[in-house]
Amino acid sequence: MASHRPHVVIVGGGFAGLYAAKALSRAPVRVTLIDRRNHHLFQPLLYQVATAGLSAIDIGAPIRQILRRARNTTVLMAHVLGVDMASRRISLSTGRSIDYDYLIIATGASHSYFGHGDWQRVAPGLKTIEDALEIRRRILVAFERAEMEEDAIARQAWLTFVVIGAGPTGAELAGAVAELARHTLVREFRRFDPSQAHILLLEGGKRVLPSYPPDLSKRARRQLERLGVEVQTEALVTDIDSAGVGVDQRRIAARTVLWAAGVEASPLGSSLGVPLDRVGRVKVQADLTVPGHPEVFVVGDLAYLEQDGQPIPGIAPAAIQQGRHAVRNIRRHLSGKPLETFRYRDRGSMATLGRSAAVAEIGRLHLSGLPAWLSWLCIHIFFLIGYRNRLVVLFEWAKSYLTFQRSARLILDESADPGEPETSWCE
Amino acid sequence: MASHRPHVVIVGGGFAGLYAAKALSRAPVRVTLIDRRNHHLFQPLLYQVATAGLSAIDIGAPIRQILRRARNTTVLMAHVLGVDMASRRISLSTGRSIDYDYLIIATGASHSYFGHGDWQRVAPGLKTIEDALEIRRRILVAFERAEMEEDAIARQAWLTFVVIGAGPTGAELAGAVAELARHTLVREFRRFDPSQAHILLLEGGKRVLPSYPPDLSKRARRQLERLGVEVQTEALVTDIDSAGVGVDQRRIAARTVLWAAGVEASPLGSSLGVPLDRVGRVKVQADLTVPGHPEVFVVGDLAYLEQDGQPIPGIAPAAIQQGRHAVRNIRRHLSGKPLETFRYRDRGSMATLGRSAAVAEIGRLHLSGLPAWLSWLCIHIFFLIGYRNRLVVLFEWAKSYLTFQRSARLILDESADPGEPETSWCE
Repeated sequence: MASHRPHVVIVGGGFAGLYAAKALSRAPVRVTLIDRRNHHLFQPLLYQVATAGLSAIDIGAPIRQILRRARNTTVLMAHVLGVDMASRRISLSTGRSIDYDYLIIATGASHSYFGHGDWQRVAPGLKTIEDALEIRRRILVAFERAEMEEDAIARQAWLTFVVIGAGPTGAELAGAVAELARHTLVREFRRFDPSQAHILLLEGGKRVLPSYPPDLSKRARRQLERLGVEVQTEALVTDIDSAGVGVDQRRIAARTVLWAAGVEASPLGSSLGVPLDRVGRVKVQADLTVPGHPEVFVVGDLAYLEQDGQPIPGIAPAAIQQGRHAVRNIRRHLSGKPLETFRYRDRGSMATLGRSAAVAEIGRLHLSGLPAWLSWLCIHIFFLIGYRNRLVVLFEWAKSYLTFQRSARLILDESADPGEPETSWCE
Repeated sequence: MASHRPHVVIVGGGFAGLYAAKALSRAPVRVTLIDRRNHHLFQPLLYQVATAGLSAIDIGAPIRQILRRARNTTVLMAHVLGVDMASRRISLSTGRSIDYDYLIIATGASHSYFGHGDWQRVAPGLKTIEDALEIRRRILVAFERAEMEEDAIARQAWLTFVVIGAGPTGAELAGAVAELARHTLVREFRRFDPSQAHILLLEGGKRVLPSYPPDLSKRARRQLERLGVEVQTEALVTDIDSAGVGVDQRRIAARTVLWAAGVEASPLGSSLGVPLDRVGRVKVQADLTVPGHPEVFVVGDLAYLEQDGQPIPGIAPAAIQQGRHAVRNIRRHLSGKPLETFRYRDRGSMATLGRSAAVAEIGRLHLSGLPAWLSWLCIHIFFLIGYRNRLVVLFEWAKSYLTFQRSARLILDESADPGEPETSWCE
């Protein structure tokens, strides 16, 4: 590995960063991929970890394991504090800094509470595996508390689940919680019937899945309602605390509130000193570089770029295409060719709501119900990284489809429960 | 479910409590099983979760799911604060109390640091799934830090793993860490070769696996050394901190120290006001009851009982036999018959150290190497609770045997890492 080869640093091992690293594995460069975590995450299935359908390890794989055959690539688990584009150097939290010839920034996005930072504690969002495990813990603990509760009104608050935001994540979460209550947990409690659970999906806009065509939004809503989800659109959430939610002058008693309403770009974007959009995404040029820096690329959910007057969506296929395009442009730059404009190829989008319930938009084709669900199944299995993951996930799905059971129902770290004193224990 | 039926309360859903509940599922009684956690844990495989071979959900299953067909049984997730044997009542941390006609206490044991409570933070033990995930996190993070470290001496401290205590848990952990380093992680790092990892197993006594016959101890030690574990017996640990271990005037620089040296009974035993042994176990009578209380049974790791001059060991088969025997005695008591003495049937014991490396004592038969390992494999698969678990565990083992890969290598909750500032992040 000759050290005079150009050094490409990739920050972030999500879809954009990982596929960039893969595309570089045979290029005449040295590559360093830096991520705060040791694993790549198949984010589209995160809601299934949050609802006890899959285990964390089914949708995550160590980045260095995925890239172990890329001999030109070093993987570092580290926090990147900032980028100094003038001296072509990034600084790590360990105090160390790393020089680059090319930089690909792919640090993604997190959830935003629109200035209500205090809501985070009572209404967790879903971006990381830790988020998913925390949501799973809250959902499962709520049913346990309901079984302990002798007062009927207090019990109903434990059995009420509010999901705020009806984009794909919120709709998928609400559908999965409804299925968990109505099918999986049935017959396991003695004080109540889990089908008493009340699942409420609140959306500020006029329809669920606002990024989909209106006819699919309508069909998605109908499917959610059939699964037992109460959908309320044009709902204005005014407050959230550990006892419930205030919405449109009304107060809903709910001990479990989940947040799927807003997105905020990674703070690393703001350290670049270049124009950002209103949620902190970097306004990249058409070739995915930062203005004035043909050696710095921003890709994936952190990048903001419009195509044909529409912003390119923050979804996995767009991130993968951008990561690969950045590499193509690095190769062109190395051979003295001009950089090329990125063109997003929309191969469609789909959201799954429950058993045989989904919507899909593939070009002009609008699917819903079983056909959409089956397409979703095939595509997600196909794109899962790693043989083990594909096989186990397929097995879990087949089993839960047939038996209505879910495997990942452990409540871990119950000491984190705010409502319980820690004075004694019994294993 | 007639409420005038006698009420049997079981505290603890480990092997002893769970098998007692199963045995009671068709008895003419009401049963309440209370556990602080929602899951039963297959503890003998916990070290495999700690060393990234299995996922938490492979060895745990929700207690209420296991018992969902026992219609006379209510499962509660709660903390039991104490027992009032005079009024036949237990008190929960929620303020509620529950009356019983019969009580089975099976709250098990935890690890003991022999008065060095401060060692717990730097040298975690292995009793719960959370413990296993924390140990996994530390082991995997150590290799990541080694890759970041430019100083060779500091790097070697990250690559040094000390396991204190060479009973079955310590020996199994040390063997599994050695395999992880020498086989699984190979080719994934660029700055060092994981086989440089130094795994040190320290034992205060004269031999590893002190509860096994001396010839098996000798063979276990030889197998551990072949796996790359340095074994040191008659080692006196004088101090442990986050930089290393002091042992016999020597100082070993090690960033990862694991504790497998001592056991301490659950504190619930001491609330009974009856004689305890030196580690807090309840000295039960030969029929497993507490003196003066034929309606209170203590079983599993919390019970201390001698048979033929030897204490009955704190292992799963003994716990299962005791849980079932307690139920047999409750049935006899209900029909006015005298209680029977418990007889432990020793069906053997085995410990696995690595790939094809194990020791087993089955009556007079002493096995080691491949035959012991194969017996261990069959028996553990057979006793795992739940079809999913058996199948997935078998699949994981077959795969890791063939490919040397391990599936559960996610570092979660890395924010818990004490050495890293939390000022920035990149996904």
